[in-house]
Amino acid sequence: MVSRTPPVADRPERAPRRRLSVDERREQLIAVALDLFSRAAPEDVSIDDIAAAAGASRPLVYHYFPGKQAIYEEALRRAGQELAGRFEEPHEGPLSERLLRVMGRYLDFVRSHGPGFAALLRGGSVTAGPAGNAVIDEVRRAAAEQILRHLAVAEPSPGLRRTVRAWIANAEITSLDWLATPEVPLEELQLQLVQEFVAALAVCAAREPALALELAGFLTAESADGPTGRLIRQLAGLLGVPGLADAVAVLAEG
Amino acid sequence: MVSRTPPVADRPERAPRRRLSVDERREQLIAVALDLFSRAAPEDVSIDDIAAAAGASRPLVYHYFPGKQAIYEEALRRAGQELAGRFEEPHEGPLSERLLRVMGRYLDFVRSHGPGFAALLRGGSVTAGPAGNAVIDEVRRAAAEQILRHLAVAEPSPGLRRTVRAWIANAEITSLDWLATPEVPLEELQLQLVQEFVAALAVCAAREPALALELAGFLTAESADGPTGRLIRQLAGLLGVPGLADAVAVLAEG
Repeated sequence: MVSRTPPVADRPERAPRRRLSVDERREQLIAVALDLFSRAAPEDVSIDDIAAAAGASRPLVYHYFPGKQAIYEEALRRAGQELAGRFEEPHEGPLSERLLRVMGRYLDFVRSHGPGFAALLRGGSVTAGPAGNAVIDEVRRAAAEQILRHLAVAEPSPGLRRTVRAWIANAEITSLDWLATPEVPLEELQLQLVQEFVAALAVCAAREPALALELAGFLTAESADGPTGRLIRQLAGLLGVPGLADAVAVLAEG
Repeated sequence: MVSRTPPVADRPERAPRRRLSVDERREQLIAVALDLFSRAAPEDVSIDDIAAAAGASRPLVYHYFPGKQAIYEEALRRAGQELAGRFEEPHEGPLSERLLRVMGRYLDFVRSHGPGFAALLRGGSVTAGPAGNAVIDEVRRAAAEQILRHLAVAEPSPGLRRTVRAWIANAEITSLDWLATPEVPLEELQLQLVQEFVAALAVCAAREPALALELAGFLTAESADGPTGRLIRQLAGLLGVPGLADAVAVLAEG
């Protein structure tokens, strides 16, 4: 729908020093819109705001995009692609350390796109509508696929898929909470989310013999000072709490 | 906004045998609407559908409600109240068995209000809009408060609150998945969600000394054949998987 002919309404006095090419201008408008939509809910961003931030005229913005909805949807798609891209991670080293790096990038994205991210996830924005749901569904799907690929399970069971999706929902709600309490250090949530994933994987493996074998392989590759090693020592520490080891022993007897 | 005067447009030939009082009629319309909105997305339910299902005329429905949005929002509020009510549970017996009963009622609600529940949670319905978000936020808040009250922790830490909210998000996404794969037995998801809660609580307690003491108390009250006892034996069973116990021992050494 977007015209590829050069803008006629470009006003030299408000344009950046160098005249942008058609593609450059379009990209600049999307980047500016993405920045604005990251800092405010979509209903609070106007075409005039986008034009002003881009050093462009209102007609110029309309030359590239039929309206706010179109530029919002494009910004949303770009944000979704960027967010999904942050789940890409080389298949090397302990699993929990890979996930720790992924979560660092993910939470960094949340921090830098806060209000837009919140509006999108909450579906509370009328502007986001079906386009927003499609974007967030695609990010969830891409994230789940990336994580399942790292697990390298030949045929992920429905139970394992549920575990991964539930953990992604956990990451989302934890991110939304974080935006309301930004004083919590990124590193705390990053480690917590990874340790919760490891715990959820163990609970899933406890029910699924095939996954239990895989889990043994993952654990063998973990390092003592990584998220999994620290979690195991923290959990072992629980057994020192008065009464806890006894209670576990009684339940383990059956 | 709703008039309390008797309906003038009530057509005897379509009305139920006994003439309903104003309050009864209003309740009947809400009940019928709730049923319809449970079985289809809100955009696929019309005022005519509601009138037909209630054995009432279209003008009669409009006499009680200004339009579909109003009747939808009222049905939504009722559904939210009912759902929140399912989280109420006597403070007696092992914690995981209380939660198991709550999850049984919750999943039963999901099953009987499937499409409406999905539309609401996904925020994908334009009709639900801010009213839908308010309802679902209130259910989440009520559910979290109920669970925290069962935990009987004097001053829930931010970490514990995060754990509870993340687990509620897990229950939601697991429910949405279930609607797409209804062949999974309710009992399987019910047990899984409770065991995931227990595991998340243990991971949280592993970081928080005060909660660790509480956890010891909960575990002492658990029974061997309850969700926690079964989880502990399943996890203990993992240690029989070749290589797994060795890997855990190495990590526990630090």
